[in-house]
Amino acid sequence: ILRPKYPVQKLYAFSTIQEVEINLTVIGQYVDYLVKEQGVKNVFVNGTTGEGLALSTQERKQLAEEWAKHAAAIGASGIAGIAPFFFKPTNKDTLVAFLREVASEAPGIPFYYYHIPPLTGVKIRVEELLDGIKEQIPTFQGVKFSDTDLLDFAQCVKNHKEQFVLLYGVDEHLLSALAVGATGAVGSTYNYLGKKNNLMLEAFAKQDLALAQRYQFCTGEFLSFVFKLGFGVAQTKAVMTFTSGIPMGPPRLPLLSASVDFIEKAKAKMTSLILGFLSGMDLLACVLLAFLEHYPKVEPL
Amino acid sequence: ILRPKYPVQKLYAFSTIQEVEINLTVIGQYVDYLVKEQGVKNVFVNGTTGEGLALSTQERKQLAEEWAKHAAAIGASGIAGIAPFFFKPTNKDTLVAFLREVASEAPGIPFYYYHIPPLTGVKIRVEELLDGIKEQIPTFQGVKFSDTDLLDFAQCVKNHKEQFVLLYGVDEHLLSALAVGATGAVGSTYNYLGKKNNLMLEAFAKQDLALAQRYQFCTGEFLSFVFKLGFGVAQTKAVMTFTSGIPMGPPRLPLLSASVDFIEKAKAKMTSLILGFLSGMDLLACVLLAFLEHYPKVEPL
Amino acid sequence: ILRPKYPVQKLYAFSTIQEVEINLTVIGQYVDYLVKEQGVKNVFVNGTTGEGLALSTQERKQLAEEWAKHAAAIGASGIAGIAPFFFKPTNKDTLVAFLREVASEAPGIPFYYYHIPPLTGVKIRVEELLDGIKEQIPTFQGVKFSDTDLLDFAQCVKNHKEQFVLLYGVDEHLLSALAVGATGAVGSTYNYLGKKNNLMLEAFAKQDLALAQRYQFCTGEFLSFVFKLGFGVAQTKAVMTFTSGIPMGPPRLPLLSASVDFIEKAKAKMTSLILGFLSGMDLLACVLLAFLEHYPKVEPL
Amino acid sequence: ILRPKYPVQKLYAFSTIQEVEINLTVIGQYVDYLVKEQGVKNVFVNGTTGEGLALSTQERKQLAEEWAKHAAAIGASGIAGIAPFFFKPTNKDTLVAFLREVASEAPGIPFYYYHIPPLTGVKIRVEELLDGIKEQIPTFQGVKFSDTDLLDFAQCVKNHKEQFVLLYGVDEHLLSALAVGATGAVGSTYNYLGKKNNLMLEAFAKQDLALAQRYQFCTGEFLSFVFKLGFGVAQTKAVMTFTSGIPMGPPRLPLLSASVDFIEKAKAKMTSLILGFLSGMDLLACVLLAFLEHYPKVEPL
Repeated sequence: ILRPKYPVQKLYAFSTIQEVEINLTVIGQYVDYLVKEQGVKNVFVNGTTGEGLALSTQERKQLAEEWAKHAAAIGASGIAGIAPFFFKPTNKDTLVAFLREVASEAPGIPFYYYHIPPLTGVKIRVEELLDGIKEQIPTFQGVKFSDTDLLDFAQCVKNHKEQFVLLYGVDEHLLSALAVGATGAVGSTYNYLGKKNNLMLEAFAKQDLALAQRYQFCTGEFLSFVFKLGFGVAQTKAVMTFTSGIPMGPPRLPLLSASVDFIEKAKAKMTSLILGFLSGMDLLACVLLAFLEHYPKVEPL
Repeated sequence: ILRPKYPVQKLYAFSTIQEVEINLTVIGQYVDYLVKEQGVKNVFVNGTTGEGLALSTQERKQLAEEWAKHAAAIGASGIAGIAPFFFKPTNKDTLVAFLREVASEAPGIPFYYYHIPPLTGVKIRVEELLDGIKEQIPTFQGVKFSDTDLLDFAQCVKNHKEQFVLLYGVDEHLLSALAVGATGAVGSTYNYLGKKNNLMLEAFAKQDLALAQRYQFCTGEFLSFVFKLGFGVAQTKAVMTFTSGIPMGPPRLPLLSASVDFIEKAKAKMTSLILGFLSGMDLLACVLLAFLEHYPKVEPL
Repeated sequence: ILRPKYPVQKLYAFSTIQEVEINLTVIGQYVDYLVKEQGVKNVFVNGTTGEGLALSTQERKQLAEEWAKHAAAIGASGIAGIAPFFFKPTNKDTLVAFLREVASEAPGIPFYYYHIPPLTGVKIRVEELLDGIKEQIPTFQGVKFSDTDLLDFAQCVKNHKEQFVLLYGVDEHLLSALAVGATGAVGSTYNYLGKKNNLMLEAFAKQDLALAQRYQFCTGEFLSFVFKLGFGVAQTKAVMTFTSGIPMGPPRLPLLSASVDFIEKAKAKMTSLILGFLSGMDLLACVLLAFLEHYPKVEPL
Repeated sequence: ILRPKYPVQKLYAFSTIQEVEINLTVIGQYVDYLVKEQGVKNVFVNGTTGEGLALSTQERKQLAEEWAKHAAAIGASGIAGIAPFFFKPTNKDTLVAFLREVASEAPGIPFYYYHIPPLTGVKIRVEELLDGIKEQIPTFQGVKFSDTDLLDFAQCVKNHKEQFVLLYGVDEHLLSALAVGATGAVGSTYNYLGKKNNLMLEAFAKQDLALAQRYQFCTGEFLSFVFKLGFGVAQTKAVMTFTSGIPMGPPRLPLLSASVDFIEKAKAKMTSLILGFLSGMDLLACVLLAFLEHYPKVEPL
């Protein structure tokens, strides 16, 4: 009988620190924020959101070391490989041969395949890829699955959930992926909505689907809103900066910094969503606090 | 508080009867099968699976009348409109104007929008479409949502579930759609896997997710298998024919009948899946029955 | 030896007359305009630009008859079939079987295949389709090729130009198609830029490539400009109306009439392009005429 | 008046030498072959066909130096930049900002933009990109245009042919691009069909279009044939190896070496195409030679 283990979900977050020069000094603060404020359990360094592909090898090493220093307690470990996306592999065998080469460079370290067809254009089904992969890549450990093909994902769960870690990477579809057996998630919104998503995981584990939906709809409402404004890695940095107070710095080319207009609208939306989760009394307190913040010199009668 | 109503899900099935001449005589038998064997609650006549677009207006009328005669007890009612797909509407206003024209031809009858971007190429978000549609189309009642964009679907649930019926149409993702609030489903696999899906709905309503997954994985395994062989409306007819015993007839051009090779492989897969759901004793009984069917003259000792 | 016959190019134009009710009364005037002002040799009735797919069968018949009455001198003859585009044929055999059915309804009339993948989504290579088609469809006569795959088109010319008529349908690429052997063209811009295109054909036939390019760049410049504004069948009607002075009427849903802003900008662009073809003296005369038109009461000294 | 300068077309060829270790020793021989046998005037080093993106920076430098040493007489000079294709620029300004960064690293060297949307997914129109680019990138010199959008290419010719070099990069469409004003070509087939293409350029310059078509159809027929078998950079290497006799070595991952079956079929096709260009007497001589090669011991009577 299939029995998914809901209590052990984990949340991962991308590193997003970067300036004209990468800024290593804020990483400690960033780690603290992710762990304490967002409940993040692991970090995914030098990924898409961390603009890994815009960094030099030297910079990627520096970042990985700095994160490792601060994040020992979090327990990050393992490396992930993406499909090549200029010359694109067109069948399973070619992709496996490529990933084997990459994994063999670090023979003692767990290896993950990072499946992200919307950016790579490589659509080889993961169900098919996983079939027999352990014989080809002994360090193979799991998949970060960043695609909306939940049939493929469900087949991975059905056939491989005992053997591999199956992390889901489309944040706005996480609840749907949990329904078919996802046991962990990696995504950029967990930088600033990690806490809400942890609450969703808890609600789901307790079979309180109505509450879980409420949290999923919160992420969905935010993303639906910002997608219409244009939303990518640059905008994610801006949202993380205003949410955490930690300066995430500008993106590198070809990305351009988020506009002031975007930041204002995204901030207002985020505030209204957070307020929506408060009870009547909490809400009253919030409004009073905001009022006092703006009119600090109001004298009591 | 959001509170989805799981107990009231409905299953709908497409009509797939058609031969060189449409064959009205088997519809009674077909209705009986859907209701008794598959637990289908409503039928969607002249849709994609029923090859509505390959029929003349006259034929569609005959079919609709014949179904209505037999299916009074099922309670089918309402019409559905698809987006035009040669000249494609490029924004909400144009699509609403078009649907309004269609709906106004039947002013007393509930109207549904049938959203199927993979076939129409029209990707206007339904969340946006529904916003204010009741003022434009007074008979508007709901959506058949045949797409994998579960963010869009979840936003429809979040904003419109009190007002509209939101039916989900990607059968292999149904459990994922239930997780974000779907309350009904329309799809071609319910012709032959309707019972399994009704059991999934029941398990989901009772919060037995492990069991619900088992049923979803059954549909997923079957579809993953036949997708690799090439699977469309013609193959659906063949599967329904060997499952129900009712002759569904060949498809019309540009569809060609399923090959004998397809039918054999699909049949073997379906059998192994059905057997997979049986307990040890049931399985033994099954094998004995199959044995007796092949060797009917075996004498008891 | 390959020897394309350049002197015999033909130009075809789509019919674009249509109002809330189709307006048959202007067709005579439309025919006169196409023949006399634009040098069009054949017409393609009820095609894409003529919104054939938005008309009833009855309306299509009325239009075809009215055009035939006026266009006897032009010599229109033959019917064209498009690939089905809801259920899409996925291989040559299915498409041929479908076209054979259509062609067999009019056994004495030359049949053309209208290849337009950007609208139908059917990308079966025409080179492959033509191979052996005459045995399957005895009335097969040629292709209207509305795609930018000039390798496929060139292969059709290379292998089939003696047997079939190969008309090219991407107006902005016509000179490029002539270079690989097109001997005729069908397209919507020939309604209002037919004369310029006939001059291009003449220049090409006389091997004056520099002059031919000048005419091609004129069409290209106009289309590049209007594509940025949003350009489709509705906008084509508007351009034809202001160019010919014949009221083309509004499009049917899902198309909406061109905006006033579009019409003004397109008109200004067209005027500046036409002026660009005039010599210095002609230009002076034009400016004087325009001046007099605006200030008709200026008295000579 | 527009007056394209046909006599000065140039042909460029990609470098395709590479083995498990890059093999610098055959480059001298390769240069000789390209110049003497194929009439190539310039080389494009470390491009798509040369698998530049599969090489380390160190390897790319070594290759560029080795080519420069041997190719001084050819006069290669200039660097080319491609659009970033993981994070994709979505508008002109971002792409220009990115290219400016790249070009500024080599301030004295002419800079070219390598436009190849089928591989990068970046579809920003080149016409728009070129508008004002010289003010942003002072070393900007031209474009390698590897796309089938000949309207965009023609607009570049119309507006910028005095200022920039416009090289066309879709080999099977070259004659169509010449018709709208291309004055040079860069492509992988010029490695082995360079001579035929130079003859096409000559025929085109002399306005012998029938002959030019014959050469274009030769390239087209070869590519149509190998596309059906699956054709990419790995297969190009194989074709170049059997045509030139110079060992091009295997490709790097994710590309896999061409199959023996592919090589045999491609070789047979190439041979039959080359034979097709011979006169009757030449052909007879050829057949005799081939006969003698197979039956060397046949004694004269």
